Amino acid sequence: MLEVEGKVSTYKRSIPSMSVANLIQMQGALSYLKRVRKKISPTGPMTAEGAEALDGETLETWRARFVKSSRINAVMDVAIRTIFGAEARELSALYFLMYLNAGGGLLSLSEARGGAQQDRFVPGAQAISLALAKELGDAVKLGVPVRKLLQRADGVDAVSDTQTIEGRYAIVTVPPVLAGRIEYEPSVSVGRDQVTQRFAMGAAVKVLLTYERAFWREAGFSGEVVSSDGPLSVVYDNTSHDGRQPALIGFVVGSQARQWSAQPLSDRQRRVTGALKRYFGEEAGAFQEYRELDWGAEPWSRGCPVGGLPPGVLTNSFAHLRKPEGRIHWGGTESATEWIGYMEGAIQSGERAADEVLRRL
Amino acid sequence: MLEVEGKVSTYKRSIPSMSVANLIQMQGALSYLKRVRKKISPTGPMTAEGAEALDGETLETWRARFVKSSRINAVMDVAIRTIFGAEARELSALYFLMYLNAGGGLLSLSEARGGAQQDRFVPGAQAISLALAKELGDAVKLGVPVRKLLQRADGVDAVSDTQTIEGRYAIVTVPPVLAGRIEYEPSVSVGRDQVTQRFAMGAAVKVLLTYERAFWREAGFSGEVVSSDGPLSVVYDNTSHDGRQPALIGFVVGSQARQWSAQPLSDRQRRVTGALKRYFGEEAGAFQEYRELDWGAEPWSRGCPVGGLPPGVLTNSFAHLRKPEGRIHWGGTESATEWIGYMEGAIQSGERAADEVLRRL
Repeated sequence: MLEVEGKVSTYKRSIPSMSVANLIQMQGALSYLKRVRKKISPTGPMTAEGAEALDGETLETWRARFVKSSRINAVMDVAIRTIFGAEARELSALYFLMYLNAGGGLLSLSEARGGAQQDRFVPGAQAISLALAKELGDAVKLGVPVRKLLQRADGVDAVSDTQTIEGRYAIVTVPPVLAGRIEYEPSVSVGRDQVTQRFAMGAAVKVLLTYERAFWREAGFSGEVVSSDGPLSVVYDNTSHDGRQPALIGFVVGSQARQWSAQPLSDRQRRVTGALKRYFGEEAGAFQEYRELDWGAEPWSRGCPVGGLPPGVLTNSFAHLRKPEGRIHWGGTESATEWIGYMEGAIQSGERAADEVLRRL
Repeated sequence: MLEVEGKVSTYKRSIPSMSVANLIQMQGALSYLKRVRKKISPTGPMTAEGAEALDGETLETWRARFVKSSRINAVMDVAIRTIFGAEARELSALYFLMYLNAGGGLLSLSEARGGAQQDRFVPGAQAISLALAKELGDAVKLGVPVRKLLQRADGVDAVSDTQTIEGRYAIVTVPPVLAGRIEYEPSVSVGRDQVTQRFAMGAAVKVLLTYERAFWREAGFSGEVVSSDGPLSVVYDNTSHDGRQPALIGFVVGSQARQWSAQPLSDRQRRVTGALKRYFGEEAGAFQEYRELDWGAEPWSRGCPVGGLPPGVLTNSFAHLRKPEGRIHWGGTESATEWIGYMEGAIQSGERAADEVLRRL
């Protein structure tokens, strides 16, 4: 289901229902995006032809030159907001293209069928971390956030409120903004600190509603909604894998997410159920449970799904995204070159950082 | 003296020497800037006509529509770098115009004679803080950086590594990026945290060279240089007020400043003296002392002279620049509405924040 500029329509394939003129322009825009992004290597975006110009402007002004239809802009905005938790005006065009290229393109990153949004884990993605932690046993310390990283001649001390853990090297895998909130002694380089000051997290809120019956399925709908009108930019069927607990899940993203939890709960619920009623009828108001997760309020996330770069940073400071500072190495999905912002990027960056350290041991 | 695109020329008044065509275009650009900025009130920039569009693009792409000469762009870039410690491509056009308006315009902010760069304090600007501190006596605590602000029902605890200071309200006056590195309990709002994630400090390095004789004065020069070629964007005569210690002072700003101290000292000195020789001859190489201050490396500054906003933040989140979070109020020059980024802005914001608290007592 697609909601753009106050109008709801349904579609059966991955291409939303649009006028023929809009479909042709959308296809043209996607082809152009693909042609340009292919030139922007995630391992060295600043050396691409035209990189300086692309990093000197926002995705919004760059896009305005080849997308003229407000409906297409609105649909692309939903994809951009959902992928970055940010608006087109906040992102460097170069960063956007590098990011797209790392994940196979705009459709690959935003689609459920055959795209990045396709799979769910049973019993939840955290199962991977839990299984890894089990193998590592006591080596994993929980509930002791590192406040300071103190480099010595032969090692690094990770200092928390209650204990200090000694190591020969450290790998920091938290998002850049959280890495910037750790104290470093000696201080990291000016270049590194300036980048972490600019690498802001997107904003996203997950909203889950459980129901007695999957009334949308009964009416022949998949439950997937893409909306430029909000507050939910996308909605999916989130019924439990065994089919027993019908549920819808939606995401408030970008600008709207920043002000979301400052509104009263009753207003938030009214806006969410109001949107779901537009798509699926009155029954959407009769939920069993209403749950939200605001990643911006999570102290160890500070936003979701990824950190994004505004114009002017990548061309000036790309080297600092991965360059070690003494015995400190940098992991985390923002430092990946494949599937930046996704679990795969996190794993790739972790392997790369571990490899860097292994070569120094 | 003006250095643009490899060519050094001298000038006697505040308008640098340029071709007549360039002077006319420069005058046109400055008039246009003045006309647009006058509409952008520093107390409510997001409500101005055209604000959305101005906040959706960088100063670089906006300026490209009315400045076509590369020489004029280069001269304006020096002013922008010196005022913000950042490049035109990093700043929101709306933020730039609001900032200009708060300080009387581009010339007012960048000029030495009759402008913001005119005055020096004897015996140094810190004399004001020292005099204030003396009056306050033991109430001023030094060397105990606040790590955490803990709000209670009836007050705020400022927690440092060694002591906790209790108060009924707190005013945070450090730059947004440093405010973001304090831990808050309970956490500040998502909106506030998202803004501090995006409010990055500019980058600037001060370079001071002392000499036996003021050879530039002897040759009839003021010592003032404006250069687009770097590494020093501006140079001033910094001879002591009594004339006894001849000195030149220069500033490395913006992109160049971010990588400055990562280069070997000998390279930095060679580049600085190389530039000064271009302006004042061989004697500039024979300095007595060479001193640098890299504000990006100062743990309680993290950059200079001010925090700047990239596109998309102001229109979405302006309210959070001054909105109290419970018992915590926000001061600091970035939260001012007059002379943002300057000492006057710091004072204005301090008075406003103090007033907010007084009204609650």
